[in-house]
Amino acid sequence: MSKPLIALTMGDAAGVGPEVIAGCWPSREIHDLCRPLVVGHPEIVRRAVALWNIPAEVREIAEPEEAAPSRGVIPVVKRCADDVAAAPPAMIDARCGQAAYDCLNAAAVWALDGRIDALTTAPLHKAALHLAGHHYPGHTELLAELCGVRDFAMMLYLGPQPTLAGAAGLGVIHVTLHMALRDVFAHLTTPEVIAKIRLAHEVMRRIKGEAPRIGVAALNPHGGESGLFGDEETRIIAPAVIAAHEAGYEAHGPFPIDTLMVRARDGEFDAVVAMYHDQGHIAMKLLGMHRAVNVTLGLPIVRTSVAHGTAFDLAWRRKAETSSMVEAIRTAALLVDRRGK
Amino acid sequence: MSKPLIALTMGDAAGVGPEVIAGCWPSREIHDLCRPLVVGHPEIVRRAVALWNIPAEVREIAEPEEAAPSRGVIPVVKRCADDVAAAPPAMIDARCGQAAYDCLNAAAVWALDGRIDALTTAPLHKAALHLAGHHYPGHTELLAELCGVRDFAMMLYLGPQPTLAGAAGLGVIHVTLHMALRDVFAHLTTPEVIAKIRLAHEVMRRIKGEAPRIGVAALNPHGGESGLFGDEETRIIAPAVIAAHEAGYEAHGPFPIDTLMVRARDGEFDAVVAMYHDQGHIAMKLLGMHRAVNVTLGLPIVRTSVAHGTAFDLAWRRKAETSSMVEAIRTAALLVDRRGK
Repeated sequence: MSKPLIALTMGDAAGVGPEVIAGCWPSREIHDLCRPLVVGHPEIVRRAVALWNIPAEVREIAEPEEAAPSRGVIPVVKRCADDVAAAPPAMIDARCGQAAYDCLNAAAVWALDGRIDALTTAPLHKAALHLAGHHYPGHTELLAELCGVRDFAMMLYLGPQPTLAGAAGLGVIHVTLHMALRDVFAHLTTPEVIAKIRLAHEVMRRIKGEAPRIGVAALNPHGGESGLFGDEETRIIAPAVIAAHEAGYEAHGPFPIDTLMVRARDGEFDAVVAMYHDQGHIAMKLLGMHRAVNVTLGLPIVRTSVAHGTAFDLAWRRKAETSSMVEAIRTAALLVDRRGK
Repeated sequence: MSKPLIALTMGDAAGVGPEVIAGCWPSREIHDLCRPLVVGHPEIVRRAVALWNIPAEVREIAEPEEAAPSRGVIPVVKRCADDVAAAPPAMIDARCGQAAYDCLNAAAVWALDGRIDALTTAPLHKAALHLAGHHYPGHTELLAELCGVRDFAMMLYLGPQPTLAGAAGLGVIHVTLHMALRDVFAHLTTPEVIAKIRLAHEVMRRIKGEAPRIGVAALNPHGGESGLFGDEETRIIAPAVIAAHEAGYEAHGPFPIDTLMVRARDGEFDAVVAMYHDQGHIAMKLLGMHRAVNVTLGLPIVRTSVAHGTAFDLAWRRKAETSSMVEAIRTAALLVDRRGK
């Protein structure tokens, strides 16, 4: 079987996206696992290659099928306007937002059409996306709309590593994600929690090769302390866990998130369903800051992403950490390999 | 200078409190650091001693000044009704709630009167406390009322250890604590955040011996992402950080909590001011599950506590972990030693 063709979208050109793509290009592992290509602007990619002084040639191609990548050749399909090359680094700019949007869109359509096997995305800047007139909280929601799906979720995934006891790594799926904390309550429903348990089950079964054990988080401190500190546990989350269990998923909880994360780290669970962004992110950043990967669940395509943002404070200064991009590509290749398993 | 006299309150008799006190009694370090005594019911303490088969005699005394503790002698002052001895283990019971309340009250009054130097508390069960007619969310709020203070906070503290880069350990102070997540928003004000920064500064200066560096958490994911995900950062938290900085505290932020905790672990901050319970607890449990200690800030007395609950699932089965109690006593002795420094 030939290696999967994976499109790397450059993200916001002013951020660390182009340089983490260029910076990880020499990794032998990436080329062993897949055939990568970049969707972005060749001039931007050339600058990133020059920044790291990487011995690779940026070769512009017209269509993804023409990609013949190697450690010495970076195939780039241009799917954005040329004005992005005039945008300054480390600044919020509508041209960067538009270019990130256009490249992502093109790659998603290729994936939906089966022209590529997966996409791995570099970070975009939400304010730049908004400036360009695209009002999405992030990649995840944008891709869900492009793919026409309603049941989707963002999983933060850490592969097997010394900080984790579990052999399949640890995935954290978020019921709510990019929204103000005060908006979480209106979005937390029993069907939403059930849907996220199902998505967690499906992706981690694919990764683990058997039914994963899923720990579901409580919303309130001490899990609500028997109703003293909130009732979402008894009213919303516990009924979802019961329904999921009855549907055959190995779901347990709701458990207070602080001890649940320790139990998951220690191998008791393969996946955690978190109720809001930071509930999942605090632990995952501590457990594997630069190795965490985003996986979008529920899409008809495979999409992974670095788990960091555009990092304007570091961008274009040879300071960006490239290991999350390597992990994101590795996870995309793994999910393609286990498709249908 | 004589060693400090520290009262250990037994907490809820049905939980792990009595056995963590008995279990840590043989520790030489405790007796090197202080003179401990127990406030509780002698019969309950005797059962805990028997449970672990500890070579120590439980000796009932009438007043704390009579305590002559050693590794072989556990002085116990009884300040609760005898009916607590008839309550079953691992069950919510009003008799246990009442006894925990009475013992805590007695020890707090001794501390206020200067008859003991500090108190270290074993966990109580909030539902049992409520059943007994005492409507407090926890120890912290109860002690604040007893001491007549309004500006107080709970700090979760980890002493210097291999998981932390900072030499003074790491303290996490919570602006809001034992309440439903949906109630946090109404309790988050600029003066409250400033007050917590001040308390964090004072306690960590005492521990560190110089001005601590304090990282202040944002409330929303990505720190609100420039106002896209909530405005508490710009409206409430940033003004507090600016005011605290102008008042001479080394406060910085607000920062997204997921990366702030990584930076604190890596030594950039000595203290973190968290906006709600789980925002602080997730990281601290991961960094030092059984070594974390609670310290109540803002009281005129020194009070520390284990960072775990009554753990009815483990209670009275020789499964309780005693290291948090050892750390809590150690931290109380440290704070007494540095009083006025």
